[in-house]
Amino acid sequence: MKLNDLWEDLFKPPISGRKSKPRDTGITMLLDKGLTAPELHNLLELCAPYIDLIKLSFGTTALYPLPILNEKIALTKKFGLHLYAGGTFFELAASQAKIEPYFERLLTLGFEWVEISDGTIEIPLPQRITTIKLANQLGLKIITEVGKKDPDLSMENSAMIKLILADLNAGAKWVIIEARESGQGIGIYDEKGNICPEKLDGLEANLPLNKLMWEAPQKSQQAALINRFGPNVNLGNISPSETMALEALRFGLRSDTWQKNQAT
Amino acid sequence: MKLNDLWEDLFKPPISGRKSKPRDTGITMLLDKGLTAPELHNLLELCAPYIDLIKLSFGTTALYPLPILNEKIALTKKFGLHLYAGGTFFELAASQAKIEPYFERLLTLGFEWVEISDGTIEIPLPQRITTIKLANQLGLKIITEVGKKDPDLSMENSAMIKLILADLNAGAKWVIIEARESGQGIGIYDEKGNICPEKLDGLEANLPLNKLMWEAPQKSQQAALINRFGPNVNLGNISPSETMALEALRFGLRSDTWQKNQAT
Amino acid sequence: MKLNDLWEDLFKPPISGRKSKPRDTGITMLLDKGLTAPELHNLLELCAPYIDLIKLSFGTTALYPLPILNEKIALTKKFGLHLYAGGTFFELAASQAKIEPYFERLLTLGFEWVEISDGTIEIPLPQRITTIKLANQLGLKIITEVGKKDPDLSMENSAMIKLILADLNAGAKWVIIEARESGQGIGIYDEKGNICPEKLDGLEANLPLNKLMWEAPQKSQQAALINRFGPNVNLGNISPSETMALEALRFGLRSDTWQKNQAT
Repeated sequence: MKLNDLWEDLFKPPISGRKSKPRDTGITMLLDKGLTAPELHNLLELCAPYIDLIKLSFGTTALYPLPILNEKIALTKKFGLHLYAGGTFFELAASQAKIEPYFERLLTLGFEWVEISDGTIEIPLPQRITTIKLANQLGLKIITEVGKKDPDLSMENSAMIKLILADLNAGAKWVIIEARESGQGIGIYDEKGNICPEKLDGLEANLPLNKLMWEAPQKSQQAALINRFGPNVNLGNISPSETMALEALRFGLRSDTWQKNQAT
Repeated sequence: MKLNDLWEDLFKPPISGRKSKPRDTGITMLLDKGLTAPELHNLLELCAPYIDLIKLSFGTTALYPLPILNEKIALTKKFGLHLYAGGTFFELAASQAKIEPYFERLLTLGFEWVEISDGTIEIPLPQRITTIKLANQLGLKIITEVGKKDPDLSMENSAMIKLILADLNAGAKWVIIEARESGQGIGIYDEKGNICPEKLDGLEANLPLNKLMWEAPQKSQQAALINRFGPNVNLGNISPSETMALEALRFGLRSDTWQKNQAT
Repeated sequence: MKLNDLWEDLFKPPISGRKSKPRDTGITMLLDKGLTAPELHNLLELCAPYIDLIKLSFGTTALYPLPILNEKIALTKKFGLHLYAGGTFFELAASQAKIEPYFERLLTLGFEWVEISDGTIEIPLPQRITTIKLANQLGLKIITEVGKKDPDLSMENSAMIKLILADLNAGAKWVIIEARESGQGIGIYDEKGNICPEKLDGLEANLPLNKLMWEAPQKSQQAALINRFGPNVNLGNISPSETMALEALRFGLRSDTWQKNQAT
């Protein structure tokens, strides 16, 4: 991807190789806690090339007036990206034995993606795999999420790796590593939101990085993951108001990633 | 209150019993630090059923261009809720012996509610009671606030209970428990923003809960109060951008309140 | 500056003497991490008199679609204030030996101000002075920034004072004291974002205060600086959504600055 024309011919961004859409890696997924339709429209006019997916957080999908929900779905399609419902909403359907009608309702509304997770409820692995395959058959594209929302239930790396490989094998396009909205004391982050290197090392050694999406709500986390994995790392749970700031990090247009890439 | 039609017939929210407007409990009060009129309009189109009151923070009421202030007042009326000026603004009037003209000016502008507090200045109890009665006589509806903005001046529970009962007896509709914008080291919260159980126990044992409004700016505080008092607890100082997220907590559509209500 | 007409004749703000635009001190500079054009328009309609400068953060200037960038520049001119590109963007040009073409491109676009800094790269003092003079000759107005973005490279006060005086002497209008977006562990702030008094004392004793602009992203920092230097202290890196709240602090319309000014 290039800087805008005015600057592109004047100087190069400190980090090169940032991919344009359509792209398989370098995905930015926003966490939408309740953008109004005009806000979403204005945001997409400003920076749709920097956004791939927008997640309607937790179960907020059920709280929208339907005309506004339809408008948001239409807007994201018009601008070449995808809106989808958060994993908690899927888990609600699963907990009430309504998985298939849930998928069908998403399709009726025009959603093309679904998130499958078990952050709050328990879903045995065989059922999880069946569910991924069912969504696939119905024509949905699938993102799964790995990790519990309760910090006391943190997974061992080996269990996480096994689960991620099973998800990918069953047809998931990307697997999200849970970090919640805060990014603290969960997944690859410690209580202060810093990355635990040994957790990351273990995942990196055993998994295809281009299939992982890191929830990274904090700027320091975004910068650390870009510094480690490059500008095309997949990042999720980005605040919509941080979209431009994250893209600046990917291009090295901000001190936090420029400094580390100055030597190269 | 129901989920939107599309989901209502598919599954039930984990927490039932969330009240619709008009309601006497389950109040959500937003803290408005400077929403533009179009932002307010779009927010209300999206989620007016989830909002009861909007407070213009501190003394910002005096900083608005009058046409925009009038527009915001009209918008909230059109969408069935109420805008009102923060308590600090009342205290400014009180400190300059302008209480009655202040009330009259609010009425002229079309405000229907007033907040009466002494978070920054001292108001002796007899004057406080007279003031509440005066506002009542003039036709204003009254919210009072209890608690000092300076953490060094924290009140004993017994003093707080006495004051709240006096306010309610004089005609206050709800009494707000001060927590400021941060929710840390003040009122029922410790330095980290966690609820102090003994403080809460004392208040709960001696006061009518449906008349209390808890300032709860942080998500963990909102979740803890919903988990303790149910979906129709009165919550204040909510960030406008968190309106949908809070409603998801009230319905159990988010892990933080769903988990605790799974057993029931 | 006065309160709006409705309140002006009713009571006085606790802090008097807040200056109206055009003003040389009492500057408020916002940090714009990606406001959409309609958001900017609505914000300026609401509170342009409270804003002097808006900085496009880091290198985001290169990420805008040009029509939107042009619209934002035109909007700020229409409302009597100035948009300018962050210092990191200048440093990018400097690092690729493109300083003069960079200045010329800014002028072509309609920018009237430029920020000159060395927060990420090293620029020797003689080159810094030459650069300030060049910008001046080309017709740009200049803000410089002093301080490193890396907390490990914090400057001694004596070095900072020398650099600030050199910048002012070379033609800088204001000099910004770096605090980044977080305001923690950098410049005059410790790890928790509290002001280090001895740092402030040293700067105050040796520099013209009306020429300094303090980056103060946190409310406690804004309040502390207003309480120390009065309502017309120059403050920068303010979040756009905090514009009205900051102005309330400047007028003493919020507890944090009213309390300290009650005795006077």
